[in-house]
Amino acid sequence: MAADRSSPPSQRTQVRRLPLRGAYDRETVHAILDAGFLCHVGFVADAGHPVVLPTGYGRRGETLYLHGSAASAMLRRLKEGAVELCCTVTHLDGVVLARSVFHHSMNYRSVMIFGRARAIEDEAEKLDALEVITNHIVPGRWAQARLPTAQELKGTAVLGLPLEESSAKIRVGPPKDEEEDYELPVWAGVIPARVAYGAPEPDPHLNPAGAGLAAPRPR
Amino acid sequence: MAADRSSPPSQRTQVRRLPLRGAYDRETVHAILDAGFLCHVGFVADAGHPVVLPTGYGRRGETLYLHGSAASAMLRRLKEGAVELCCTVTHLDGVVLARSVFHHSMNYRSVMIFGRARAIEDEAEKLDALEVITNHIVPGRWAQARLPTAQELKGTAVLGLPLEESSAKIRVGPPKDEEEDYELPVWAGVIPARVAYGAPEPDPHLNPAGAGLAAPRPR
Repeated sequence: MAADRSSPPSQRTQVRRLPLRGAYDRETVHAILDAGFLCHVGFVADAGHPVVLPTGYGRRGETLYLHGSAASAMLRRLKEGAVELCCTVTHLDGVVLARSVFHHSMNYRSVMIFGRARAIEDEAEKLDALEVITNHIVPGRWAQARLPTAQELKGTAVLGLPLEESSAKIRVGPPKDEEEDYELPVWAGVIPARVAYGAPEPDPHLNPAGAGLAAPRPR
Repeated sequence: MAADRSSPPSQRTQVRRLPLRGAYDRETVHAILDAGFLCHVGFVADAGHPVVLPTGYGRRGETLYLHGSAASAMLRRLKEGAVELCCTVTHLDGVVLARSVFHHSMNYRSVMIFGRARAIEDEAEKLDALEVITNHIVPGRWAQARLPTAQELKGTAVLGLPLEESSAKIRVGPPKDEEEDYELPVWAGVIPARVAYGAPEPDPHLNPAGAGLAAPRPR
């Protein structure tokens, strides 16, 4: 699938309320997904109620890969194949302080994906998907760490979620206030926010050979 | 309700897979909720599929308050009263780099709340809840900004979600590898992560009186 393919929104990905913030082009969706590695995946449990779980992901092309313990409730449920999910990725870019309480907002980039996730069972395909996830979260890590054994592979459930039905929503820029509020003596603007990484904390049991290596950086 | 009340987990808040990471005491749940203001709220849409939306929140006592445009699909749906939701808050604290791909993990604090949200319709109660949300996200902001008009209040839907059925899940510390992997020449440890705020960006239309004030800091 071409990376610049643009698909019309489905009924449920159509961004309804503030259309100017909605984006459906593949580049925007991909860029937001590639700017992070943590999503919140929602599904409907057997009992009919919604469940939202945070989990790591990786992307390649038009597929989002999720993984977890084969024993986890979510993955057991999703592996049945007939379960729809909604996967949402959100980057908080700032807190938007308006002159009025009503116009306070947040700057953010988010993607919402609707679809049915496919359980990846084939061993080679599973390894490949795990490589995508691993290198998505920590670029180059697959080549550094000890690869999964057959046993570990069996204990890991991996899912592929097509990005076909996905949309992005973005807010940028300063607050928008009511015309008459601009004269109020209130500080207004944006407090930018981002995820910051600190100095690497080596494992206390790190051996000299490992300690001599550079700590990798997450995406 | 006492802040130190400890309630036994329900069937769906019971943390199943790694019980050592689960916590149900009120203080832990409150502390995680109070460390942020962005949640991912999941509900089941009319058509039966899950929807997960990022949204701001505030907490007071045993209630989480959510708000949004009265026109938003989520709030319209939830206002019907009979809709269950799952609200998840996640703080990423670090990326855990193990010697094996399999043992890579994340350090995090998360809370999951199941329940039915109540629409807050009474004007005084709505104002009170909006004060909780506003001051939760930006402490002290309610006293600084222009308060909502009757019209704005009408255009804002506010929901109260009881924390009764909530649980926390936490991972801290270095990676745990297989015994035989500790001798591998692989860097292992934690790359700490946190949300960082940048220098305030004043609104280009800020007037001199507003510009003379200190920019407030989000939580």
